[in-house]
Amino acid sequence: MCESNAYILKDGSEQLIMESVGNVTFQGDYVSLKSIFGEERKLKGRLIELNLIGHRILLESEEAT
Amino acid sequence: MCESNAYILKDGSEQLIMESVGNVTFQGDYVSLKSIFGEERKLKGRLIELNLIGHRILLESEEAT
Repeated sequence: MCESNAYILKDGSEQLIMESVGNVTFQGDYVSLKSIFGEERKLKGRLIELNLIGHRILLESEEAT
Repeated sequence: MCESNAYILKDGSEQLIMESVGNVTFQGDYVSLKSIFGEERKLKGRLIELNLIGHRILLESEEAT
């Protein structure tokens, strides 16, 4: 399985915001995350790095988690 | 293995630009793709969709491929 964990970079450290993300879509300034369990989350932010080997999605967001 | 193929959406159709992408980074308007074979490509564009289950990265770019 190739789903990844999504993290937000905040004050220099990474905070896990969703596990087992299967799909990510982008619309304007918003990023929508969907986990394989049906969980959904939309936040204002941008992608910094996508590591498909390490199963990590790193985001930056102005929103508090 | 969880590397994905990267496609650019162009004139309504999808064009394969890199296979076996393992890492994607974002800096300003640029997207950098790295394959697990060491191939690298940087292009001006943005991410539309990331499908980790279907192993697909869909991008939009003004640059010709």
